[in-house]
Amino acid sequence: MKIYGDHISGNCLKVKYVCDLLSIPYDWVETSVLKGEARSPEISALNPAKQLPFIVLEDGRVLSQSNAIMRFLSIGSGLIPSDPFEAAQMDQWLFWEQYSFEANIAVIRFHHALLETPLEECDQTKIEKGYSALDLMEKHLSAHRWFAGAKLTLADIALYAYAQFAEEGGFKLLAYPNIRCWLDRVARDLCQD
Amino acid sequence: MKIYGDHISGNCLKVKYVCDLLSIPYDWVETSVLKGEARSPEISALNPAKQLPFIVLEDGRVLSQSNAIMRFLSIGSGLIPSDPFEAAQMDQWLFWEQYSFEANIAVIRFHHALLETPLEECDQTKIEKGYSALDLMEKHLSAHRWFAGAKLTLADIALYAYAQFAEEGGFKLLAYPNIRCWLDRVARDLCQD
Repeated sequence: MKIYGDHISGNCLKVKYVCDLLSIPYDWVETSVLKGEARSPEISALNPAKQLPFIVLEDGRVLSQSNAIMRFLSIGSGLIPSDPFEAAQMDQWLFWEQYSFEANIAVIRFHHALLETPLEECDQTKIEKGYSALDLMEKHLSAHRWFAGAKLTLADIALYAYAQFAEEGGFKLLAYPNIRCWLDRVARDLCQD
Repeated sequence: MKIYGDHISGNCLKVKYVCDLLSIPYDWVETSVLKGEARSPEISALNPAKQLPFIVLEDGRVLSQSNAIMRFLSIGSGLIPSDPFEAAQMDQWLFWEQYSFEANIAVIRFHHALLETPLEECDQTKIEKGYSALDLMEKHLSAHRWFAGAKLTLADIALYAYAQFAEEGGFKLLAYPNIRCWLDRVARDLCQD
């Protein structure tokens, strides 16, 4: 299997984390976000959505969307809860992550940390929405160790992917002690397995 | 089961469509998007994400995010492909729908059709991204009848939910013959079952 991705992208790192946790072998094809390589004729011929990451299976089939890829690679593993309602809660956080978290936190981090745009010139609505998203995570983590069920699932991996970069995106996590503890907890799980 | 939703919202209609197709009984609790009722103290106590739709099961458990709800209610039905890769392709479109389609098409439709904002005062970047999303759907449908596998799945229902309102959002579908045929195809399937 080939993974087309960029190591600076949380979405791409999600797929790497899952493969490493589940010992799934892969070839990583470094594809630059900053150079827009996903829009090149060669690469967009493989994935017409022109987004990263995507995977190419041995038989040539292509799958895109980080959370869909993680879900596919994790079938039958402990990264997806066996209880259907807990799996649904995991899915709830996966969709929320893309719409309400990544679309704000990752986009601001991209502009501020990678394109070096001063925070005051970034989209202030996205900064506010990013803090609202952090508020909701902090509230959840004040009563739960993980996002779905009683251990690490894809919901944690998806949210960790950009939460780990929130501070370089200018988001201050001092007022989010539960998020900081959870970040450490996920980092330990990603390293140990 | 209760569904908290608004009939003007494609995201909420997705859950209704799935329940009607699968003959799942429900009580619909009409909750106004335009009045911001999801942010009221009573309703946000149930769903702290303050978004619609969400469901409340008989035992009080709550699930939000339209695509996660559809996926949970459809377990074991023909609306999710039994082949794991086709199910993953369905998931790919579900995530793409939220990030690249709904975030543009539904948002513009909300401002133009529901808040009556003239198109020229709407976010032009979202209009451009909306047309790019329609381009990708048209390209897919030029070679496939459905978005994942050989029949209607949740991917079609999710994309139909707002594609049916694209024109009232000011998006012109004349140049998208395959999307128009597919809209008719999905509408027939939603009515027949």
